[in-house]
Amino acid sequence: MADRLNVCIIGSGNWATTIARNVGNNALTSQFLEPTVLMYVYEEYIEGRKLTEIINTTHINVKYMPDYVLPTNVVALDDVVTTARDADILIFAIPPTFVSNCCKTLLGKVKPLAHAVSLIKGFDRGDDGQILLISHIIMRQLKIPCSVLVGCNLAHEISNNNFCEGTVGCRDQKYMRILHDLFKSSTFRVVVTDDADCVEICSTLRNIIAFGAGVADGMEMNENTKGGIIRRGMLEILQFVDVFYPGSRMATFFESCGLSDLVTSCYANRNRRLAETFVKTGRPLSELEYVLVPGHEPLGPVTAELVNIMLKKKGLEDKFPLFTTIYRICAGAYPLARLVETLRFAREDIYHPNHIFQL
Amino acid sequence: MADRLNVCIIGSGNWATTIARNVGNNALTSQFLEPTVLMYVYEEYIEGRKLTEIINTTHINVKYMPDYVLPTNVVALDDVVTTARDADILIFAIPPTFVSNCCKTLLGKVKPLAHAVSLIKGFDRGDDGQILLISHIIMRQLKIPCSVLVGCNLAHEISNNNFCEGTVGCRDQKYMRILHDLFKSSTFRVVVTDDADCVEICSTLRNIIAFGAGVADGMEMNENTKGGIIRRGMLEILQFVDVFYPGSRMATFFESCGLSDLVTSCYANRNRRLAETFVKTGRPLSELEYVLVPGHEPLGPVTAELVNIMLKKKGLEDKFPLFTTIYRICAGAYPLARLVETLRFAREDIYHPNHIFQL
Repeated sequence: MADRLNVCIIGSGNWATTIARNVGNNALTSQFLEPTVLMYVYEEYIEGRKLTEIINTTHINVKYMPDYVLPTNVVALDDVVTTARDADILIFAIPPTFVSNCCKTLLGKVKPLAHAVSLIKGFDRGDDGQILLISHIIMRQLKIPCSVLVGCNLAHEISNNNFCEGTVGCRDQKYMRILHDLFKSSTFRVVVTDDADCVEICSTLRNIIAFGAGVADGMEMNENTKGGIIRRGMLEILQFVDVFYPGSRMATFFESCGLSDLVTSCYANRNRRLAETFVKTGRPLSELEYVLVPGHEPLGPVTAELVNIMLKKKGLEDKFPLFTTIYRICAGAYPLARLVETLRFAREDIYHPNHIFQL
Repeated sequence: MADRLNVCIIGSGNWATTIARNVGNNALTSQFLEPTVLMYVYEEYIEGRKLTEIINTTHINVKYMPDYVLPTNVVALDDVVTTARDADILIFAIPPTFVSNCCKTLLGKVKPLAHAVSLIKGFDRGDDGQILLISHIIMRQLKIPCSVLVGCNLAHEISNNNFCEGTVGCRDQKYMRILHDLFKSSTFRVVVTDDADCVEICSTLRNIIAFGAGVADGMEMNENTKGGIIRRGMLEILQFVDVFYPGSRMATFFESCGLSDLVTSCYANRNRRLAETFVKTGRPLSELEYVLVPGHEPLGPVTAELVNIMLKKKGLEDKFPLFTTIYRICAGAYPLARLVETLRFAREDIYHPNHIFQL
């Protein structure tokens, strides 16, 4: 039998801790994996004790997930290089803005044949200022392939053993089964596809749409308006993938990373709530982001801005009227009422020209 | 200039009256249409007065839409043959079970070049017992083409001038613009496609999925379960069209008849509410249907049953696990908990085999 693979997790927030429970349990029973899973924890002191020490003795991440117990084979470390150096699979679950520095620290210190998996949603700027998917930043900086796991925008739903779905976008055929077995549980259904860019983009762009849905909720618009935002949003996601990451497959949009994450985000995620509060209170976004989600950056407005930069550069703002409208509402450049105007007048033929007749 | 077209509406319920307002207003301003729109009303007596007489004097359909005024050029008649005989466009908006008899009455009495438009959702049995789409029943019996208008499952949202979307599935190129102009309003966005079967099927099958979503709500399942039902539901709708009405286009599923109607139904329609109450009260469906929706047959359970007959005939029940599970829950043959089991174990490759890796 081949050597078993070492797995580490870089990050210890809510989502990292959630997935550490699945990964820890699966490592214990898998024939492909070493049982011990190292987890890099940004060291903090909680009532005078180190967080790593608390996790390693109580097996509870008291800071980010106090109600759940981790498997005892998940071991917290306060040094990222020590955590990562022997790992064959590196799972990244840190805020997007920390990725670049983390990779700089790790460059040349991870196994050359290691495989990364990003759980991080969003775009960020690479070293050269170019806007990139997080997995691309990791690949460029660490020089190893980086798959993605997305889905289930509600970490507590996995932890509570409610039914959830996730999609892995895998960049190496031989990791498909391994990554499936690494993340799944009896209630967390994982599907693996090789259309990795599309998986990551869907899960990133949906935060823009969720923000738009929250604006509609804040304005107490009707159900059909929200349905229209979801539909138009899906069309613009399709078109965005087609323009910026061509070659993706239609099937991927029907995975959980596409259709179901988009819908659940528009009814239940924090971007939606942020937007609703933004509309109802009239307070600036910068204030609300801090109040509503301390420790979590709501990705809708940030993503809307980065996407707008990408669109502007190609002269495509008009071809993505919903993304553009939501960005401008966030930026204070459009009144809220523009949202419905956009739905009313947006052309239908963006993705399938000639297929649809419209005046 | 060519002769203007005569339009009539057959039916006077909630949806018929809603669309009569748009059609009436558009007929007044269109250069293609005669201004007078005849509406067939099933005669009833309201406090001793004929309903047709009330509508023609007060312009209010006191029975089905007491809060809205109809344009004065909409004229109610109590005889269906008189209503239809001079019409170039016949809009059908009656309960599905009345369609067959209505067509029998009209056969040979409508203009041979007339064009029908069905606003009726659902399947029904044709004369030979075969299960057919309503528009196909109309076409077979009346020997004229029948387009469909679907979308906006919430008639009051159109009436209140909230933003809504509708899709016309048009069976004759030269009616595309006419039907668009006939139904649209400043708040009701209408898109016309020629993929008529797909439009009608989407709007029919979504009632099964909405019932499933309501079961999940009744069981107080989590958001991701509902997202999973919507996603799986969409996949089975795609597959159903592929098996029973091949040749449809993917773009149609992204019209309002597809994605947005499915989503809004799963959050806000009467099938969802019926299912939620069914689960929470434990009372039989037959009792609840009457209590919840007097005068309206909630189509979810009925459609689930007809679809099941179609699937069984082809030995395909296993390939449509969600449709089959929802049907069996309606029929009392499965416990409610089977719904989540189905989501958990349903195979992913139904629509796009080879594209997706799954264990």
